[in-house]
Amino acid sequence: MADLAAVKRALTAQRIETPSWAYGNSGTRFKVFTQPGVPRNPEEKIADAAAVHRFTGVAPTVALHIPWDKVDDYAALTRYATDLGVGIGAINTNVFQDDDYKLGSVTNPDAGVRRKATDHLLEAIDIMDRTGSQDLKLWFSDGINYPGQDDLRTRQDRLATALRETYDRLGPDQRILLEYKLFEPAFYATDVPDWGTSYAHCIELGERATVCIDTGHHAPGTNIEFIVAFLLRQGRLGAFDFNSRFYADDDLMVGAADPFQLFRIMYEIVRAGALDPSYGIAFMLDQCHNIERKIPAIIRSVMNVQEATAKALLVDRDALFAAQQSGDVLESNAVFMDAYNTDVRPLLAEVRTDAGLDPDPIAAYKRSGYDEKIIADRVGGNQAGWGA
Amino acid sequence: MADLAAVKRALTAQRIETPSWAYGNSGTRFKVFTQPGVPRNPEEKIADAAAVHRFTGVAPTVALHIPWDKVDDYAALTRYATDLGVGIGAINTNVFQDDDYKLGSVTNPDAGVRRKATDHLLEAIDIMDRTGSQDLKLWFSDGINYPGQDDLRTRQDRLATALRETYDRLGPDQRILLEYKLFEPAFYATDVPDWGTSYAHCIELGERATVCIDTGHHAPGTNIEFIVAFLLRQGRLGAFDFNSRFYADDDLMVGAADPFQLFRIMYEIVRAGALDPSYGIAFMLDQCHNIERKIPAIIRSVMNVQEATAKALLVDRDALFAAQQSGDVLESNAVFMDAYNTDVRPLLAEVRTDAGLDPDPIAAYKRSGYDEKIIADRVGGNQAGWGA
Amino acid sequence: MADLAAVKRALTAQRIETPSWAYGNSGTRFKVFTQPGVPRNPEEKIADAAAVHRFTGVAPTVALHIPWDKVDDYAALTRYATDLGVGIGAINTNVFQDDDYKLGSVTNPDAGVRRKATDHLLEAIDIMDRTGSQDLKLWFSDGINYPGQDDLRTRQDRLATALRETYDRLGPDQRILLEYKLFEPAFYATDVPDWGTSYAHCIELGERATVCIDTGHHAPGTNIEFIVAFLLRQGRLGAFDFNSRFYADDDLMVGAADPFQLFRIMYEIVRAGALDPSYGIAFMLDQCHNIERKIPAIIRSVMNVQEATAKALLVDRDALFAAQQSGDVLESNAVFMDAYNTDVRPLLAEVRTDAGLDPDPIAAYKRSGYDEKIIADRVGGNQAGWGA
Amino acid sequence: MADLAAVKRALTAQRIETPSWAYGNSGTRFKVFTQPGVPRNPEEKIADAAAVHRFTGVAPTVALHIPWDKVDDYAALTRYATDLGVGIGAINTNVFQDDDYKLGSVTNPDAGVRRKATDHLLEAIDIMDRTGSQDLKLWFSDGINYPGQDDLRTRQDRLATALRETYDRLGPDQRILLEYKLFEPAFYATDVPDWGTSYAHCIELGERATVCIDTGHHAPGTNIEFIVAFLLRQGRLGAFDFNSRFYADDDLMVGAADPFQLFRIMYEIVRAGALDPSYGIAFMLDQCHNIERKIPAIIRSVMNVQEATAKALLVDRDALFAAQQSGDVLESNAVFMDAYNTDVRPLLAEVRTDAGLDPDPIAAYKRSGYDEKIIADRVGGNQAGWGA
Repeated sequence: MADLAAVKRALTAQRIETPSWAYGNSGTRFKVFTQPGVPRNPEEKIADAAAVHRFTGVAPTVALHIPWDKVDDYAALTRYATDLGVGIGAINTNVFQDDDYKLGSVTNPDAGVRRKATDHLLEAIDIMDRTGSQDLKLWFSDGINYPGQDDLRTRQDRLATALRETYDRLGPDQRILLEYKLFEPAFYATDVPDWGTSYAHCIELGERATVCIDTGHHAPGTNIEFIVAFLLRQGRLGAFDFNSRFYADDDLMVGAADPFQLFRIMYEIVRAGALDPSYGIAFMLDQCHNIERKIPAIIRSVMNVQEATAKALLVDRDALFAAQQSGDVLESNAVFMDAYNTDVRPLLAEVRTDAGLDPDPIAAYKRSGYDEKIIADRVGGNQAGWGA
Repeated sequence: MADLAAVKRALTAQRIETPSWAYGNSGTRFKVFTQPGVPRNPEEKIADAAAVHRFTGVAPTVALHIPWDKVDDYAALTRYATDLGVGIGAINTNVFQDDDYKLGSVTNPDAGVRRKATDHLLEAIDIMDRTGSQDLKLWFSDGINYPGQDDLRTRQDRLATALRETYDRLGPDQRILLEYKLFEPAFYATDVPDWGTSYAHCIELGERATVCIDTGHHAPGTNIEFIVAFLLRQGRLGAFDFNSRFYADDDLMVGAADPFQLFRIMYEIVRAGALDPSYGIAFMLDQCHNIERKIPAIIRSVMNVQEATAKALLVDRDALFAAQQSGDVLESNAVFMDAYNTDVRPLLAEVRTDAGLDPDPIAAYKRSGYDEKIIADRVGGNQAGWGA
Repeated sequence: MADLAAVKRALTAQRIETPSWAYGNSGTRFKVFTQPGVPRNPEEKIADAAAVHRFTGVAPTVALHIPWDKVDDYAALTRYATDLGVGIGAINTNVFQDDDYKLGSVTNPDAGVRRKATDHLLEAIDIMDRTGSQDLKLWFSDGINYPGQDDLRTRQDRLATALRETYDRLGPDQRILLEYKLFEPAFYATDVPDWGTSYAHCIELGERATVCIDTGHHAPGTNIEFIVAFLLRQGRLGAFDFNSRFYADDDLMVGAADPFQLFRIMYEIVRAGALDPSYGIAFMLDQCHNIERKIPAIIRSVMNVQEATAKALLVDRDALFAAQQSGDVLESNAVFMDAYNTDVRPLLAEVRTDAGLDPDPIAAYKRSGYDEKIIADRVGGNQAGWGA
Repeated sequence: MADLAAVKRALTAQRIETPSWAYGNSGTRFKVFTQPGVPRNPEEKIADAAAVHRFTGVAPTVALHIPWDKVDDYAALTRYATDLGVGIGAINTNVFQDDDYKLGSVTNPDAGVRRKATDHLLEAIDIMDRTGSQDLKLWFSDGINYPGQDDLRTRQDRLATALRETYDRLGPDQRILLEYKLFEPAFYATDVPDWGTSYAHCIELGERATVCIDTGHHAPGTNIEFIVAFLLRQGRLGAFDFNSRFYADDDLMVGAADPFQLFRIMYEIVRAGALDPSYGIAFMLDQCHNIERKIPAIIRSVMNVQEATAKALLVDRDALFAAQQSGDVLESNAVFMDAYNTDVRPLLAEVRTDAGLDPDPIAAYKRSGYDEKIIADRVGGNQAGWGA
């Protein structure tokens, strides 16, 4: 049996980072449906992230996206966040929205474009210095749409060059989180398509380069928890971008499409002792709430991760290992499923109550009047979105 | 052996429709990269379509998209097209870009929204009456992002109601082309996800309701040529939206991702005697050229369809049927592949020369100065795109 | 709130059919791992099915597979089953294991092979007459491995001919359950690859032809519950073959790979009022237990279906419909997930206790000594498997 | 323009290895359809491989599979092969057909089973010593069917242990080719599922551990040529197992499902200068011919690889690089496609004629009487297959 007190301690200590861009407008190539009350600037995004933290108690940091969250005074922004009870998390880079990047950023055939893109990565480290952020998240939209469009291997050389320069600029307490993605916006080949590519580059870069797993970025049939287990074994799992998808989008609420998969992922984390913040994995959301209200969607997502984690913590590992060792297929699966089938919501309600929180974060948010207030207050100006 | 003269006649008679929106700007949710020389209005799109027809000789119609191609005087627009040597093809509807359609159009829980969406479909038939178009292309972005978000079955009832009203409004020479799509922009369930759903609705509607196959709208592993063969057998294949994709986008140049698949599709067309325009299938492109020059990309796409068709026509069907009937697996595959492996470009060059065209449409387009001219002329104004 | 008494009644009335072949040996193309205690004949398979029914109370019928379960005296076999407390369910046909079927059965290029295959289907109806079975399950392994190997459309004609002759032979209380499968053992094209193909043939055949959904037979990304909802709307859903898969096998225990999907499927059943046996849907397992003990695996599978059903019954449909109608995406999803996240095992334990059963069927089976007994008794002879 | 003389030299020097097991019977879990004339022992398989080499001129080695090709005297077997004009290629291991391997071989929870499996790998190196083979091909069927069945990470530790012991036993001129496979026969998780896993183990083992790419072992949407390019860049691509598949089987004739993909793969080989035998990549077939005659199917497969290679060699790389460097998407794709669209069969006929071979290997094989002879001679005995 899992030790309930230890389970509660682990759940209390858990940390989930929310992304500033999830508070802004987003959509598909067909349409962006805007919402009332959406933030108009980084401060308002941080305020929303702080609201999520107030109601969940486990989301104390917010990731920024440059240039969407560009400000003149990052020290001031950091103080603003601190005053609201949250910290600045990972710095996300953007080398996909400038006209120059049509054929790639750090892998572009044009050396000038590569220089510009790399400079942006270096600039992001400057911002890390000023915000105290330790995580540089790198996602490259780079890739090609047609066979022959560019040379697959040469693009790897260009990528390696940019990564090296970026890595060498990192401070001693800073690291790279290198994300991979099977497809989109490049349609034939992406330059970092899978964990293996990211891993290989990280190995070459050095110890402070780690892989970021975005749960929505895999081919159908990919066993994501295997990748989690493998990267943990290799000491190269740096972060998650949590979200979910049914087919090829990657921005539904985490746990919405396959809650059992999320449980299996969190089990590998728990089994490796990697849940505790001291282990160093950044558990981040990376989602977009195109048609649902954003703040409660993010609260729900945080809760989904908590529920999967609670179930993972409840696995009776002694019984599981005994059944596995004896080769009892049905019994080992049964022990595993017993935890998954448990309704952990009462347990999490207790954890929240113990922490002085409302046991039902969604209901508490609704009662708080925050939603009505931002709708009333945030009138005029330009709503934040991917375009800004 | 295929009869070469008959092959040439078939290739000469072939007709491919190009879409007005492919001449405008397009992109992904991450970025729309604009291009110089892009049309600013329906007339300029039609002019570009006419250019494609001038160089290929097989693209005499252009599909319109409402409201992107809305004009006050459709009779004038039709005359304008005729003067340039092209006709108006299918009328495409758009029930996905109004804020009201966030939760669906004809399947929306709100009856008022459903009414508005259906009225748009009826309006499109009005435009067909005025342009002489016979094809109403229906694609619904309708669907839901989360399990439970709406009732799957009730949405089918709503869809059936709207389709019935639309069908009953058709003139005697008009028909519905009902498209299906596995996913996007709805991420959990789309309301017309596969050919079976489209087919079942068409059966219920009546004889002038037919299925439109968009080659990019299937799950991985789907055998598209099987669907082609099956719908031809059932007499319900109305149209193609040609394009190609490697994973989940659906807008690369047709034949770019899997030319062998395109050949197999065209073989089923040829085998059923359905290539000739009199058979009534609308062979349309539905593509977007996000990073490549648009007009030559469309010319290339038309040529790709021609090449696949030529190969399909070259299949030695007597030899094939003999090998199939004798159960000779290797020989029947060999006969089939022999046609595919043939370089049909010289044959198509002949067909073009015989028709008074340049044998190399891409080179001829480049030499023509058209590209330079539109870049010089189309300065100022608002470039056409999905947003307008 | 769902009415708990009604939920219990529905769970008590639920019926799940187990397949005779799941009690025999099975494996992959690489290896069949045999197990001790495996049945040597149809009677022993039926005895095992009866054991599953004794411990679960909801599995009162067993499907037969011809010729694997061929006997001289079907009346005697039926009495034998009745004496053990179970009935004969669907009759499954096998037109894939004779050397003649290398290139297909009812779609074979050779008319003699087609005749032989069709005769087998007719023979199966004879067996239905003698066993009182009302369901003829048709799965065709037919298809081709290579493009060009045979003519896709002609094979449909042959298929339609065989189906027609078979359908016309059905008695007034008998029906066809027509299964579809994306791939395997045919690798390029299967002759009934998807629900649309099965549906179209059923429509042509008549009212007693219905579609059988095997949950493991779809392309990646296919929304199975949509198909369920759609076929229920069309009145053509006849049966399920339950199992689960992660990628392309289709024989893991139902609910093992994606329990959330199973819940969504059962929700559409409940929502349509189609759970009750009087509705006429055959809920069958079709699985193979290659490495786990077979009887407890089948008990577990039955329980998995029960648990998904219980959750589906617990959905607060009034609240769900209200949220859906108001367009509240998060709330409708939350209502739906609330049922899924409920631990229904205590409720099912009550249902079992009320029915005079042990609340824990697996534990009861283990205590019963049945497993030890069959291992001791079933020594010598030829173990049943796919080959016999 | 490609240098035609150099192209011919490259095609003449090309080497493709055929697998002994492809000459034996094979099938699916549903049925093995046997064929007349199938070899009954390793000598007859080698004779068939020698026949393939006689007609193609580029298949001078044959891979063995232990224990299917176990003999008492490997020196004699090697001489027998040499006398027929072929050499012994890679030694393939089999740790999936013993009852002990039900839950895995080198990753089995039972230490005794792991020992047995590792001993088999070491025995295979003994056979390499005796046959002069330099390549140890490792494919592990290891994996689990159900979540929780065994510990994903511990299994990696066990795998690493076995690989280390095996690697350390290699002679100085021997190497490991470590294959990966997404699924089958394990259905939930395989222990070496992707190239990244294989690569990471190879890096840890040492320089003589390299990745083997089986073209049929990837998730849908995977860009295989990217993996080829990447592993070449890393210096870790050791071998190919060529075959093709549409969905999830992996044993159709190479080039049969997607000839364009095969061309793209071979282009990356050519571009890296890795085609020449001196580079060290083993280009092996790994196929099964379930319904087609085996020897001509293998000849066809060899020809398919040759044709893809010829097209890859014909790419005008100067023009391609110029177009790529200038960012001309359409032109670079056009240059690439120009080579693909070329009919290279006349060129290959010339290469064969120059080498003293018949320009049409299939026709020559048919005329040779070999097929009739083996059907007449190989009567009685046990036909070779996966079971022996």
